[in-house]
Amino acid sequence: MFYTDGKLQFAVRVETPDPLFARALQQAIGGVEGEIRVAMQYFFQACGARGNPKFRDLLMNTAAEELGHIEMLATAVALNLEGAPVSIKDEIVADPVASAVLGGLNMKNLLSAGLSAMPVDSDGVPFDMSHIYASGNIAADMTANVAAESTGRVLAVRLFNLTNDPGMKEMLSYLIARDTMHQNQWLAALEELGGPTGVFPIPNSFPQEQELQEFSYAYLGFQADGSAPVPGRWSEGPSVDGKGAYTTQSLEPMGEKPILGPAKPDSGAQTEQL
Amino acid sequence: MFYTDGKLQFAVRVETPDPLFARALQQAIGGVEGEIRVAMQYFFQACGARGNPKFRDLLMNTAAEELGHIEMLATAVALNLEGAPVSIKDEIVADPVASAVLGGLNMKNLLSAGLSAMPVDSDGVPFDMSHIYASGNIAADMTANVAAESTGRVLAVRLFNLTNDPGMKEMLSYLIARDTMHQNQWLAALEELGGPTGVFPIPNSFPQEQELQEFSYAYLGFQADGSAPVPGRWSEGPSVDGKGAYTTQSLEPMGEKPILGPAKPDSGAQTEQL
Amino acid sequence: MFYTDGKLQFAVRVETPDPLFARALQQAIGGVEGEIRVAMQYFFQACGARGNPKFRDLLMNTAAEELGHIEMLATAVALNLEGAPVSIKDEIVADPVASAVLGGLNMKNLLSAGLSAMPVDSDGVPFDMSHIYASGNIAADMTANVAAESTGRVLAVRLFNLTNDPGMKEMLSYLIARDTMHQNQWLAALEELGGPTGVFPIPNSFPQEQELQEFSYAYLGFQADGSAPVPGRWSEGPSVDGKGAYTTQSLEPMGEKPILGPAKPDSGAQTEQL
Amino acid sequence: MFYTDGKLQFAVRVETPDPLFARALQQAIGGVEGEIRVAMQYFFQACGARGNPKFRDLLMNTAAEELGHIEMLATAVALNLEGAPVSIKDEIVADPVASAVLGGLNMKNLLSAGLSAMPVDSDGVPFDMSHIYASGNIAADMTANVAAESTGRVLAVRLFNLTNDPGMKEMLSYLIARDTMHQNQWLAALEELGGPTGVFPIPNSFPQEQELQEFSYAYLGFQADGSAPVPGRWSEGPSVDGKGAYTTQSLEPMGEKPILGPAKPDSGAQTEQL
Amino acid sequence: MFYTDGKLQFAVRVETPDPLFARALQQAIGGVEGEIRVAMQYFFQACGARGNPKFRDLLMNTAAEELGHIEMLATAVALNLEGAPVSIKDEIVADPVASAVLGGLNMKNLLSAGLSAMPVDSDGVPFDMSHIYASGNIAADMTANVAAESTGRVLAVRLFNLTNDPGMKEMLSYLIARDTMHQNQWLAALEELGGPTGVFPIPNSFPQEQELQEFSYAYLGFQADGSAPVPGRWSEGPSVDGKGAYTTQSLEPMGEKPILGPAKPDSGAQTEQL
Amino acid sequence: MFYTDGKLQFAVRVETPDPLFARALQQAIGGVEGEIRVAMQYFFQACGARGNPKFRDLLMNTAAEELGHIEMLATAVALNLEGAPVSIKDEIVADPVASAVLGGLNMKNLLSAGLSAMPVDSDGVPFDMSHIYASGNIAADMTANVAAESTGRVLAVRLFNLTNDPGMKEMLSYLIARDTMHQNQWLAALEELGGPTGVFPIPNSFPQEQELQEFSYAYLGFQADGSAPVPGRWSEGPSVDGKGAYTTQSLEPMGEKPILGPAKPDSGAQTEQL
Repeated sequence: MFYTDGKLQFAVRVETPDPLFARALQQAIGGVEGEIRVAMQYFFQACGARGNPKFRDLLMNTAAEELGHIEMLATAVALNLEGAPVSIKDEIVADPVASAVLGGLNMKNLLSAGLSAMPVDSDGVPFDMSHIYASGNIAADMTANVAAESTGRVLAVRLFNLTNDPGMKEMLSYLIARDTMHQNQWLAALEELGGPTGVFPIPNSFPQEQELQEFSYAYLGFQADGSAPVPGRWSEGPSVDGKGAYTTQSLEPMGEKPILGPAKPDSGAQTEQL
Repeated sequence: MFYTDGKLQFAVRVETPDPLFARALQQAIGGVEGEIRVAMQYFFQACGARGNPKFRDLLMNTAAEELGHIEMLATAVALNLEGAPVSIKDEIVADPVASAVLGGLNMKNLLSAGLSAMPVDSDGVPFDMSHIYASGNIAADMTANVAAESTGRVLAVRLFNLTNDPGMKEMLSYLIARDTMHQNQWLAALEELGGPTGVFPIPNSFPQEQELQEFSYAYLGFQADGSAPVPGRWSEGPSVDGKGAYTTQSLEPMGEKPILGPAKPDSGAQTEQL
Repeated sequence: MFYTDGKLQFAVRVETPDPLFARALQQAIGGVEGEIRVAMQYFFQACGARGNPKFRDLLMNTAAEELGHIEMLATAVALNLEGAPVSIKDEIVADPVASAVLGGLNMKNLLSAGLSAMPVDSDGVPFDMSHIYASGNIAADMTANVAAESTGRVLAVRLFNLTNDPGMKEMLSYLIARDTMHQNQWLAALEELGGPTGVFPIPNSFPQEQELQEFSYAYLGFQADGSAPVPGRWSEGPSVDGKGAYTTQSLEPMGEKPILGPAKPDSGAQTEQL
Repeated sequence: MFYTDGKLQFAVRVETPDPLFARALQQAIGGVEGEIRVAMQYFFQACGARGNPKFRDLLMNTAAEELGHIEMLATAVALNLEGAPVSIKDEIVADPVASAVLGGLNMKNLLSAGLSAMPVDSDGVPFDMSHIYASGNIAADMTANVAAESTGRVLAVRLFNLTNDPGMKEMLSYLIARDTMHQNQWLAALEELGGPTGVFPIPNSFPQEQELQEFSYAYLGFQADGSAPVPGRWSEGPSVDGKGAYTTQSLEPMGEKPILGPAKPDSGAQTEQL
Repeated sequence: MFYTDGKLQFAVRVETPDPLFARALQQAIGGVEGEIRVAMQYFFQACGARGNPKFRDLLMNTAAEELGHIEMLATAVALNLEGAPVSIKDEIVADPVASAVLGGLNMKNLLSAGLSAMPVDSDGVPFDMSHIYASGNIAADMTANVAAESTGRVLAVRLFNLTNDPGMKEMLSYLIARDTMHQNQWLAALEELGGPTGVFPIPNSFPQEQELQEFSYAYLGFQADGSAPVPGRWSEGPSVDGKGAYTTQSLEPMGEKPILGPAKPDSGAQTEQL
Repeated sequence: MFYTDGKLQFAVRVETPDPLFARALQQAIGGVEGEIRVAMQYFFQACGARGNPKFRDLLMNTAAEELGHIEMLATAVALNLEGAPVSIKDEIVADPVASAVLGGLNMKNLLSAGLSAMPVDSDGVPFDMSHIYASGNIAADMTANVAAESTGRVLAVRLFNLTNDPGMKEMLSYLIARDTMHQNQWLAALEELGGPTGVFPIPNSFPQEQELQEFSYAYLGFQADGSAPVPGRWSEGPSVDGKGAYTTQSLEPMGEKPILGPAKPDSGAQTEQL
């Protein structure tokens, strides 16, 4: 269960409200690489973590921290929106800067939320909880978490570069640091689970002799002139999981054109298909 | 651009049509860990790949292969749906097995698609392209691809365990092998990009002296009794990115309760908030 | 069933087309507090209204009125969009006001709808019919309707404040009046159903002796320093439903840490979880 | 910010795992009347609460409690899913009960989440954060909260009636009690804000003389035979907000058929429309 | 504006309630080929119909009829759901038929709507208003309407085949007849707009000399062995729009591999991309 | 299966990067009338095409071409986004043109994708695969394809009118030509299937004597003054399908007000409904 004391994990200061930056910050709240995503992803992974309970503990504690990040960002959005117009005066209509401000907003921040944050991205699209990856496989979950924190830190860096406000830069320098830790944290969990050769291929509980192994380490590509695709670490040498060696093969059909046959009567098809 | 010869990458055989398994297979087409996702993800990553063009080449070739996997699975769904009823006879209504079959379908496979595959998951929810992660950062993209192929192989293994049909088991043993390769392929790409210490923290182009470094390698947790959270690889020792050492700190507020102040007149608030 | 004579419930005049205001008006059509929502909500509530048929009658009649409001607003959007550019001339590219107009549009109003209204909100997000609350409990439905009309009137007031156009202000003064009525109408229905002490807790058909009554009127909160949360009408005195008295309790766990145990073999988990 | 100690707010016991009931419980997690919705709704309302800070405090504390409810329900789902099949044996295929179990699941709980809970509803549809109503008007927010808890308690009662498991019934009797409190809590907040005559019409900061008051308390209806719609509390007597008296009027057009005129050249219309 | 008298356009009788058929009927309400779609599509097309007002009239009248069809179907769903269980008795748990009924439902029809219809499809997915095609081009709209009524009638026929209930068969035979008319109605509108040679290519207001005409009537295909794709009416002879003659060409690249160049500094890319 | 050589079907040149036009182009990628839609629609129709295999061939080949169109447009978006700012300098904040550019972007193209294309529309809304119409009826599919290409060409023409860049105009003149062909191609397929009198009403496999034929060719409308709706080709003369003659009838109820009766005990209704 969760507790709150209503305080912020880190100070949120806005010196010069900037409604357009409020819109950008929304991506860090409700974007697919934002804080709702990581908070809820770690939460549901924790709730489904079977096996060693230390992973549940790790995940749930980090979920709690991420909830606090949503709160910080939502506060930052509200403070930046203080600069947005709520009523139109004639001079604003004629002022291209003011028009650009109004046109550049997520209008819903104004019309639906009254100058407050919403669980939407920077274009006003609501967050969809299908982005919560919680697979029941603890290692697969960790790869999803590394990916989430990698894209999350990319986003935070882009936001850092889009503002000159000292308060906002300070808040983001904190969040970027936390993303550094969280990338490292989930990478550490993968090490604790055995590192690349112990973890991969995920799931490691499936007996590899049941897969069609001649295709397990083959890079497939096609070039119209018959040449091989551009080589790389993925086309030769030992595989990262330590269980095979990369080869390159041409992408070619091993099956025929599929034939479904005629449609059933009463299936709503045209007569010509029956 | 893309070409097709209408053939299948691997043979698709169904000995005993099983409409319930058709529903399960839909997850591998339109689920968030399914083939539309990887095909389109690699496609869009390729289209946005700046820097060394070998990554565009790698990504676009693999996108082409994944399109062929959708085609295989869609054929498998249609063949399994041959066993579904399209008209109700009295005997079916009274037959619990037949009722269970009809009730257990994605009804849209029958009602909307006429016993064919759809771009939906195993509960009939359409695929939403917001799951296409293409960040413009090639390393972040690779972590997303490792995650996608990890959950993808978990799914393929679960499907393998849910069928007894020899044709379906063979097709899945091929797809599982390809997922093994693709996990290894994207891990190899991360090695080519510098390996853990070269790649992380992502993006590696942000100068770490601009982040609040006292929090960059600190695990934060809270226990009501004041004890530390359960330790692990993530709470001590050198960080995986090679740039710090893990510590543990208590999760504590560094900010105050936020005060937004009164609402603006004309902002649609209650009088009591002004 | 429904009839139309093609006329508008109230006159729609636009003196100065304003494409940015057209975008704002889209929120009143396709936003979650907009007219599609109330029209369809009352419609589906009517279709599922069991018990006294007067509620079906009330709901379906109001659904018909709300359909007419969508029509008014869609007309207003189309008239305001007459001011938007459909082709780019060189002078427009260099003109910040014109650029701001084009950038401030829902582009789909131009590209998809040819300067007409769409069932989307002010940021171009399509309306999702999951917002139609029709619970099968007539009192719960009425609370949802009060909420819908409350947020609806807040929105209409915000739109009123964002325009100087006399025609638009007149149309909105009509819609605001209708929202006043509809708030009062659904409150009146709650009174007809018994008022606060007759209606609540919803559903009133569940025997309260089957709920864990020691928690039925207790406000739960947590403060790090052990102090009580800020008191209010909700923490002392008789409950609004007339069936208890408010108390305050500290939020504390009554359950243990959950243990799910090991994962099943064949479930796609890592070996370490089995 | 938020803290967790990993414990449950209330004990979660399942005596006889029932995968079909796990599916039903998903509605209380990810349904529009479920716990994610209230947790996030109170959270975002708190983050945007301008005016008296006691409401922020009240909302954030209740958000914390609701997060704990998601955790309880997610645990209950995982425990109930222990009864689901993860591999198909021949005997299961021929067994109508086992087939019905598999066909009756949200398949994603099995295929995507490995027998764990997901942020989806009882039909596998992901929760969409557009259902978080946080309007910036504290009274409108409270009406949305009463509605959420009313539909939430209706749902909890339906779940209570769909299970015979003593552990599940006990957990639900606790959650039903909390819904009773939360309905009363938000009703109490509306009283603190002035009660019906002080609060309504929402927003009370808009001067009613600017609305078209002849329509502010009129019930509009249409009957083909010219008779009045069925009367009720909403068609006569003083209005609930204390500012008017209900009347009944016939629904009639006050506007003409709208004429948009010809389409613009270059707008992509047919020549016949120009 | 719209009026209702609360009556049904056609009688809705259910002799034997069938909850599974209720689920199937939901597709005709909230599926992409269902009645909400056509009602709202014709409504928004009417609201944006520029040019000859007879099309607005035609569209709005048909929208009104389709609203009545939703009402019929919603009534049919509620009547069929009368057969669904709302509480679990021990005997039901052990009864495969009863279990199959419960597992085969859209659970939300029971849990969220209390045995009533919802604006969702047969798998419980809410209707999404992005399916309302209203392009501002009257001819393009008519093609979308022909498509909607074609898939709509296919669906109605499939439903007709899935029920033995005389009342349901009668209702569907009426709806199928209306779909016959509506297909013919929109085809008639296309004739009124000029027929194939007058209408196509849509939009007919774009001067065809500005398109790259050597590709305007060429069928492009690819076969690995260099043979031509299978011929048909689309590969030779005069084009249906009367403005060209079909040819067949091989699908070949006319552009090079795209080179985006390095990423910008400060854009959040990896150093290796700069 | 699919192959790629990484080249573009047609050259993509951008002389003057225009970030606002990049946003507009997104509609042609991820809009409902865009290229993802047609590529995936033809792909899934091909996978479910029962009957004569020439239609599978036709559809799959055209799907391959459309994939190449997404690639062209994604390249065009990335090249146009080269003109967008990635960091804020003081001078930009004060510059209305620069502010308008930033505010006019899909922010996600910058924040999520690093100046690359995404599978979203021009307002940043992700493409939803429910727009893939593949009905299992080959003629219904063809009508959907005509509609898709008609709205697609309308969009391409609007984009053509919104740019002055010679490279973009050339690329669009090619895509417009292809849309001309594809409209004609699907119309040709309908002719091959029998033309209007052979194809309609779709599905032509349903015996029309089982529909209520007195309503199969009747146009229904309502006018408050009792007059007939405006006549047209749809109200008199032979029907386009050659199987009837149009008539006009008044829209009138043939059913009564529906009565659902009381709610069930234990169904979560209010006591007043039981």
